[in-house]
Amino acid sequence: MNILDIIGKKRDGKSLTKEEIEFFVKEYTNGNIADYQASALVMAIYINGMTVEETTNLSLAMAHSGDILDLSMLGNVVDKHSTGGIGDKVTLILMPIVASLGVKVAKMSGRGLGFTGGTKDKLEAIPGYKTEISIEEFIQNVQKIGISLIGQTLNLAPADKKLYALRDAINCTANIPLISSSIMSKKIASGANKLVLDVTCGSGAFMKNIEDAEKLSKTMIEIGKLAGKETVCIITNMDQPLGKMVGNTLEVIEAVDALKGNMSEDVKNVVLELGAYILKLDGKGENIEENKKQIEEAIKTGKAYNKFLELIQNQGGDISYIEDTTKFEKAKYKINVISDKEGFIDKLNAEQVGKIASYLGAGRIRKEDDIDYSVGIELIKKVGDKVIKGENLAIIYANDEEKGEEARKSLLETYKISEEKVEKIADILEILE
Amino acid sequence: MNILDIIGKKRDGKSLTKEEIEFFVKEYTNGNIADYQASALVMAIYINGMTVEETTNLSLAMAHSGDILDLSMLGNVVDKHSTGGIGDKVTLILMPIVASLGVKVAKMSGRGLGFTGGTKDKLEAIPGYKTEISIEEFIQNVQKIGISLIGQTLNLAPADKKLYALRDAINCTANIPLISSSIMSKKIASGANKLVLDVTCGSGAFMKNIEDAEKLSKTMIEIGKLAGKETVCIITNMDQPLGKMVGNTLEVIEAVDALKGNMSEDVKNVVLELGAYILKLDGKGENIEENKKQIEEAIKTGKAYNKFLELIQNQGGDISYIEDTTKFEKAKYKINVISDKEGFIDKLNAEQVGKIASYLGAGRIRKEDDIDYSVGIELIKKVGDKVIKGENLAIIYANDEEKGEEARKSLLETYKISEEKVEKIADILEILE
Repeated sequence: MNILDIIGKKRDGKSLTKEEIEFFVKEYTNGNIADYQASALVMAIYINGMTVEETTNLSLAMAHSGDILDLSMLGNVVDKHSTGGIGDKVTLILMPIVASLGVKVAKMSGRGLGFTGGTKDKLEAIPGYKTEISIEEFIQNVQKIGISLIGQTLNLAPADKKLYALRDAINCTANIPLISSSIMSKKIASGANKLVLDVTCGSGAFMKNIEDAEKLSKTMIEIGKLAGKETVCIITNMDQPLGKMVGNTLEVIEAVDALKGNMSEDVKNVVLELGAYILKLDGKGENIEENKKQIEEAIKTGKAYNKFLELIQNQGGDISYIEDTTKFEKAKYKINVISDKEGFIDKLNAEQVGKIASYLGAGRIRKEDDIDYSVGIELIKKVGDKVIKGENLAIIYANDEEKGEEARKSLLETYKISEEKVEKIADILEILE
Repeated sequence: MNILDIIGKKRDGKSLTKEEIEFFVKEYTNGNIADYQASALVMAIYINGMTVEETTNLSLAMAHSGDILDLSMLGNVVDKHSTGGIGDKVTLILMPIVASLGVKVAKMSGRGLGFTGGTKDKLEAIPGYKTEISIEEFIQNVQKIGISLIGQTLNLAPADKKLYALRDAINCTANIPLISSSIMSKKIASGANKLVLDVTCGSGAFMKNIEDAEKLSKTMIEIGKLAGKETVCIITNMDQPLGKMVGNTLEVIEAVDALKGNMSEDVKNVVLELGAYILKLDGKGENIEENKKQIEEAIKTGKAYNKFLELIQNQGGDISYIEDTTKFEKAKYKINVISDKEGFIDKLNAEQVGKIASYLGAGRIRKEDDIDYSVGIELIKKVGDKVIKGENLAIIYANDEEKGEEARKSLLETYKISEEKVEKIADILEILE
């Protein structure tokens, strides 16, 4: 077997065998296949596609390129994953909720890169919270309190890491076989046996339209099936950011508020839907509407919030910040984004908002960049809302006045205001099992 | 402008502008664009194609990536180029002929790589012959005796050199826009104003069928037009090797014999056709049949052979070897390839023969390999010939007895013998102007 023949097959639109895919992944990870050869193959995959079988084999081969976490001692473990979005603090809210209802939560999350945030960064915005603990401690935490949220400390799917960086450098990220195998390789390696995937769709997501989101979902469900991981995909709207806050500390504060019962409509819809399916997959209830009621009850009674406090404390975090979120360090400048028009919010491009937050310091351009936890954006008006001239659309939280002013101008431009009434967009677009 | 957007456009099947192509060629040659990025773009070009305009722009940009030879002081210069073949000694025979008829010949030739031979190597098989002389001397030689054949001493189209090596390493050689721009970039840089291209077609050529050979020809003619170089393409058969000999010294001997009037039918047909068009492009005669007669006359009278001697002497070669070709160093072993069947030669795969010659040491696997001038193959029987059991099909010339024996076995297998009568294949398949 040699890489030239493998490249040639895919170049000509043929399917690769399991052995060929395994050979490529192994030898590329080892450095025996050069980047320029992998790059040619990736482009050929991008253009000529891959069958679901090939995509599954690629996912499995990448999963087995590094550590495979064994969580079987925990019984059922349902993992939740989002394909990426802006203002997406769902993990912070949802996982304590389902943990409070008896679901075992053992979840690793990545850092943010580019204009999307990462749960690991948000957790690290809480003083004292340790995201890098040993796997033994991680599992002990789950056994003890039913939940642990950490960073990716294991060497999970290193082949995917290498290939992902390459795809980024050759403009080959937005491709269904490549995205789905990237996600599923990490999920297969990270040990859960059931998966609820939040497939984001819209201007702030990889998938810009519902057809692509459906294709990605179907592919991942199929991979899950072939890999023995029951998978549900929920396609959610990411045409505008999720919830009110974009930025690390700001999103933690929003999550705490949500767990205290003060949740914005869109966040609530996503949390209830994903949560109901997690409960279903975990055998906690067949009826989705009943499951949603369980979740609302867990919030109302404070069970979910208490589980969150328990999680923070157990990971070394200072819960006084959670109990009183005004203790969090504030950004120096709060700049109002005042509307100069009257009408209805028509569009609020999520990617654009993410880029502005990133520009303020909330995100990373390169993976070695530091981030500024306190900066970000509070979105007061969202799509469908009415606004009058002189009213506040949003607030910029900045530590650099000039950058704050730049961000204000950009955000004002990002708010597209129409004279005619605008319908709110649905938060849940489709559910695929 | 940035490489990611350029890759993205071609990935999506869009056309690249002149500026985008120039940017890519310039920055790739400078090392500012990484191999893995060029590799992704090459694969996208391979799969999604390029218009003739894009291909022309690529040829011109690559031509201008290095030295451009100015031969305008010589007046009309007609260059001849072959897209590569086995046993192809046409340049050695043809160029002295046309030079003897007053055509200015200033030609640079490459080394062989893989299973195809190179004219530079064949010239170097003649003791003393200098293929690496200065450009001044090269031009003086042409001014003095009307002909000079040398190696590629200038830095011609370095972008093509870099891209060609990359294409080889990612299995993207056999593609019409990439082949035609590679050839034409070197031809544009090497200073001739008119081109006769021998487009080989068949098992020993890049183009395996006539449709592809036609497409390649049309593309190169179009590029020639847009680049101001009148171009004629002659599609010749390379389904079996050309002539009798394969190997460097052996081919020189065959060329000398040919110039003395002893030319095999297929070599003669190709030499006459290409030569007639060179004379036409150079304004030496409009009528192709008349031109062919001029060529036959030049051989018969010894004019062509004398020009060859003059060329060899002028480049420092020892003409005593030409005057008595038995002086050339012989391979140690001469092994007959005896037929074990009776019938007609049906197929003699040229690529296979080239690989066997290469295995004996006549060719290079890597460009830094040494070659053995004396080894090679003499083909006694060719397609259409009758053979009886025990008759000699070919002779192996080897310096290693074991390799010779291996080569004998492989060559015997390569000769496909049919019981039914087999028609000879046409040597000239098509002419495109």
